[in-house]
Amino acid sequence: MNSFGNLFRVHIFGESHGACVGVIIDGVPAGLMIAEENFSSDLVRRKGGQQKGTTPREEADIPFFKSGIFKEKTTGAPLTILFENNNVKSEDYEKQRAIPRPGHADWVAHQKYGGHEDYRGSGHFSARLTTGIVAAGVIAKMLMPSISISANVISIGGNTNAEDAIQNAIERNDSVGGIIECRVNGLPAGLGEPYFNSLESMLSNIMFSIPAVRGIEFGTGFSAAGMFGSEHNDAIISEDGKTKSNHAGGIVGGISNGNELVFRLAIKPASSTPQKQQSINWETGQMVDFNIEGRHDLCVALRAQVIVEAATAIVMADCMMYEQLIPRVIK
Amino acid sequence: MNSFGNLFRVHIFGESHGACVGVIIDGVPAGLMIAEENFSSDLVRRKGGQQKGTTPREEADIPFFKSGIFKEKTTGAPLTILFENNNVKSEDYEKQRAIPRPGHADWVAHQKYGGHEDYRGSGHFSARLTTGIVAAGVIAKMLMPSISISANVISIGGNTNAEDAIQNAIERNDSVGGIIECRVNGLPAGLGEPYFNSLESMLSNIMFSIPAVRGIEFGTGFSAAGMFGSEHNDAIISEDGKTKSNHAGGIVGGISNGNELVFRLAIKPASSTPQKQQSINWETGQMVDFNIEGRHDLCVALRAQVIVEAATAIVMADCMMYEQLIPRVIK
Amino acid sequence: MNSFGNLFRVHIFGESHGACVGVIIDGVPAGLMIAEENFSSDLVRRKGGQQKGTTPREEADIPFFKSGIFKEKTTGAPLTILFENNNVKSEDYEKQRAIPRPGHADWVAHQKYGGHEDYRGSGHFSARLTTGIVAAGVIAKMLMPSISISANVISIGGNTNAEDAIQNAIERNDSVGGIIECRVNGLPAGLGEPYFNSLESMLSNIMFSIPAVRGIEFGTGFSAAGMFGSEHNDAIISEDGKTKSNHAGGIVGGISNGNELVFRLAIKPASSTPQKQQSINWETGQMVDFNIEGRHDLCVALRAQVIVEAATAIVMADCMMYEQLIPRVIK
Amino acid sequence: MNSFGNLFRVHIFGESHGACVGVIIDGVPAGLMIAEENFSSDLVRRKGGQQKGTTPREEADIPFFKSGIFKEKTTGAPLTILFENNNVKSEDYEKQRAIPRPGHADWVAHQKYGGHEDYRGSGHFSARLTTGIVAAGVIAKMLMPSISISANVISIGGNTNAEDAIQNAIERNDSVGGIIECRVNGLPAGLGEPYFNSLESMLSNIMFSIPAVRGIEFGTGFSAAGMFGSEHNDAIISEDGKTKSNHAGGIVGGISNGNELVFRLAIKPASSTPQKQQSINWETGQMVDFNIEGRHDLCVALRAQVIVEAATAIVMADCMMYEQLIPRVIK
Repeated sequence: MNSFGNLFRVHIFGESHGACVGVIIDGVPAGLMIAEENFSSDLVRRKGGQQKGTTPREEADIPFFKSGIFKEKTTGAPLTILFENNNVKSEDYEKQRAIPRPGHADWVAHQKYGGHEDYRGSGHFSARLTTGIVAAGVIAKMLMPSISISANVISIGGNTNAEDAIQNAIERNDSVGGIIECRVNGLPAGLGEPYFNSLESMLSNIMFSIPAVRGIEFGTGFSAAGMFGSEHNDAIISEDGKTKSNHAGGIVGGISNGNELVFRLAIKPASSTPQKQQSINWETGQMVDFNIEGRHDLCVALRAQVIVEAATAIVMADCMMYEQLIPRVIK
Repeated sequence: MNSFGNLFRVHIFGESHGACVGVIIDGVPAGLMIAEENFSSDLVRRKGGQQKGTTPREEADIPFFKSGIFKEKTTGAPLTILFENNNVKSEDYEKQRAIPRPGHADWVAHQKYGGHEDYRGSGHFSARLTTGIVAAGVIAKMLMPSISISANVISIGGNTNAEDAIQNAIERNDSVGGIIECRVNGLPAGLGEPYFNSLESMLSNIMFSIPAVRGIEFGTGFSAAGMFGSEHNDAIISEDGKTKSNHAGGIVGGISNGNELVFRLAIKPASSTPQKQQSINWETGQMVDFNIEGRHDLCVALRAQVIVEAATAIVMADCMMYEQLIPRVIK
Repeated sequence: MNSFGNLFRVHIFGESHGACVGVIIDGVPAGLMIAEENFSSDLVRRKGGQQKGTTPREEADIPFFKSGIFKEKTTGAPLTILFENNNVKSEDYEKQRAIPRPGHADWVAHQKYGGHEDYRGSGHFSARLTTGIVAAGVIAKMLMPSISISANVISIGGNTNAEDAIQNAIERNDSVGGIIECRVNGLPAGLGEPYFNSLESMLSNIMFSIPAVRGIEFGTGFSAAGMFGSEHNDAIISEDGKTKSNHAGGIVGGISNGNELVFRLAIKPASSTPQKQQSINWETGQMVDFNIEGRHDLCVALRAQVIVEAATAIVMADCMMYEQLIPRVIK
Repeated sequence: MNSFGNLFRVHIFGESHGACVGVIIDGVPAGLMIAEENFSSDLVRRKGGQQKGTTPREEADIPFFKSGIFKEKTTGAPLTILFENNNVKSEDYEKQRAIPRPGHADWVAHQKYGGHEDYRGSGHFSARLTTGIVAAGVIAKMLMPSISISANVISIGGNTNAEDAIQNAIERNDSVGGIIECRVNGLPAGLGEPYFNSLESMLSNIMFSIPAVRGIEFGTGFSAAGMFGSEHNDAIISEDGKTKSNHAGGIVGGISNGNELVFRLAIKPASSTPQKQQSINWETGQMVDFNIEGRHDLCVALRAQVIVEAATAIVMADCMMYEQLIPRVIK
């Protein structure tokens, strides 16, 4: 099941080395002016090869609008966006078919899908699927011009000087983890529900759909576990809900309180480290040494920044629609 | 919207000081033998008053089966369980109506529901709503006898000696946070989906429906952000997917890999600290000092343990049904 | 799975001879003033015993509000309404347990639920479950004061003089079918979606949840099959969409066009006819003659009128919310 | 919202004169062998131009598999199938933009989407969207080899000699309605749920997503309204649920009873009749005479047969999955 959202609903599909990846978005209001250029900067940020520590695979990442757009505006019908896969090298995956790569989904996919999974470049599990999330995020952000969302790497390999940390990883020839912090400003109070559609529930649900995310915390997060209530509580200092501190990270009782929304994500080191690794060969039953071939990121946190922003925007658009703060037709 | 799950679907309802709280469960297989006794031990664990640091409010917490059971077995129809609220003191909430309690949902609820919310004892936002989750968890666990789920407080206030930490909080007369670790054994490989229904997505979704949860991490979690790929990857050492280490915490690519499932939750200190606090009085527009009255927990992490187990069981039952590992009729 | 609707979401539960039947409604706006009296007239219309040809079972049908109401107004939290079952006689069902009643769900329920179903008074399959639908309909109608919904029996047993037809059935001592026509006025244009959430799709989905409904047709319905396009098409005669004829019954392309909404339902004769019938005894494997005991309707179409109105209102409220024509908070 | 189904879930998208139409199917088991040839005969049946009374628009209707297939088998990931639109003539629609065609969705779409709808060839409302339904139906049928589904036109224009009736319509130069009957054999008992997911609810929901359907009836349907209970009830004559008559059409209490499933659909005459019609010009506010140009069907019931079969198969596959009668992996 590959759908997310209630009113702004996203369906992603595709494989890394198949024909394409893409997204269908249901619930986009009619009348939103859309052009290829709106997607460029976010897609470039998501794409590898621009930055130290990211994959050199170069896909054009041109969004092909297949439905839902007419005369450069959304029509209210499902909006389909496709990204072709052109720059594909699948041979390496054939060779190592019987050796599940540690940290990757190879073994679980083989188990779950009875050996029928597309194993080339992680197939449907590939981070390339996040292209659709980024595209949906572009639409979502356009629907909420007064809300700003910014996700940034705040540490890599435990080092807050991210540039040093990347250089270190390059020198060690190893992948490395990082932490992303996302901040959202301009949110109205009242978004989210008390329980299963709490803002944290919805955000964490979609964030754990981003490959390599291993943890999420809101506001003070895990450090709240070491605090006393008198320290942690945020005094409410105005009738419109502003608080003196923001330990809650902008969410109380599952609902936005109008203060800045703050959360952080733990991103594990890319599973595709250039270092020698061990795994079992399921044909021979023997443990083998092997090296990951192919083109990969050392630090996926870097490319994940824009994906986190997009995923955040998708949740916010869905909540804003529920509160009738985004109209069904854009005038 | 207060529903969770696809095939094992839970709907919770009620208010802290209303007539009752409860749960409807859709999708329970027919033929499961159920008695009040099955619920006792989990409900007692959830209930306050048994343990240092928990609320002295004493509710009988007797499950009233209102539908879906006949001749002591489930029928396959929706299973409704009600818990009456008897031990209620609402006067304090009337008095302090205009002063939203810091850390509580008072202000956001007032904003979102236009002043119509039931504000007595946090109303629908109360942790008392988790009684329904615990009850659903009991059913879920009965459907998966070979799976064991155990959640434990591993630190309070930053101290791994939880007894000392509670004593410290009692002496300081302040509430305190904690960390819960949940471990699941006996899970088959193959549960969960690559994206929006990844095991982490579903687990985090429901965990953030538990009041006071501020963070979740799987396996190495936030410490993965400081690791290199060669350290973090778990070598696969057998054809049935066993790994040498378990940094992944039993989930790869969103899917269980048959190793132990491990995650941790950050629980904030209870908002209802006995300490003096400040907030705005929205009628007068003045900041005021005030004290929380009523009966409250100093450390909600203690009572949350069984709720975490129940929520975990709900997710697992849903996934097991999807994989056809729980039959539609219990023989 | 017993839920219906997207934004105005109804969950029904209960059994005919169990503790109660009831409904939870998610998505009710906060601030709607609600009292027991609002429900009386619709519940009386649904209830038997008031009219020739309806069951003499007399339940008080008092709505017990179990959650979601505070100070006589809705709070925005799930609204739970329970109806107790008091006037229950279950002995007859025990006696004839092994003989599935023709037309009833006895045999399919036994098959589907492995013999664990509550078979007393049709259990969860009983038309008594529609009490919850009627109650939800009352709420839905209160949210749409400018829309009027009226469902009426237009023929019984093929006779448009319904009184004669009922008298005839009473004299023959047999149950009889009928046709209900529902008309909705005051609907805005634009409700519904082109495909799976077309107005017809949603309406027919919920109408076939009403026991004994065997067919539904919109506008000219089945007679359209005998017409030519030049006859059937409704000429549009004003800019606001009014049409000269209304063969479409107010829906075009799945979407309301602002004209009167018209549909008809075929209601089969009640399965519980007083006439002697035959069925198999699944314990002996023998065909047996038997008579239905208990208290039953001769013409369920009579009581179904108000249920049809309620079900219609539920769909309309859901669509109106999607189009942002019902606010989240009632002022 | 353009999704249907719970476990076998279909999302359709596209426009008549846009780039393509298509479908994504979530929940397809892994390991199903699929080739273009499997789709040919059903797509040809759906396509116009083969038969008297159907549109001469000739699209190749080649299914392009964009995701979810690898080495000619399904992978368990979302299956995306695209059909390109090549044979498009849009000029006529530009000319008559201000004149909403009677019976078509032009006016409601304009109203609902604020004038942003793609109006060429009915845009997203076009029956061309049913190509995706037919493709999904092919997959569904392959998953249920022991179930046979057959839908046939049983009358046209009120005449059971369909050939005569079509000839008559051609001579009158007018479109004409018809009735389709669908029969399903080989169904197990126990599919469907008592209320909102009753077999009738699900079938009617998807059937009213097929353009031109105006009514649906199960078993005796509308004629049941004229019957007595003693006539209508089907005596159960064997322990496996076989009935003497089949007035119920194979569904009791919302659930299949193992007898033949029978339902009928009323199909209205195509709105695009060649006859002169009247409508308002919304720019001038004047009533105008006009003729529908373009390539159209006189009797859409003919092409709808295969669509009805496909839609039926989609519902059955969804129910069969719920009852665990279709495995997650095809061996």
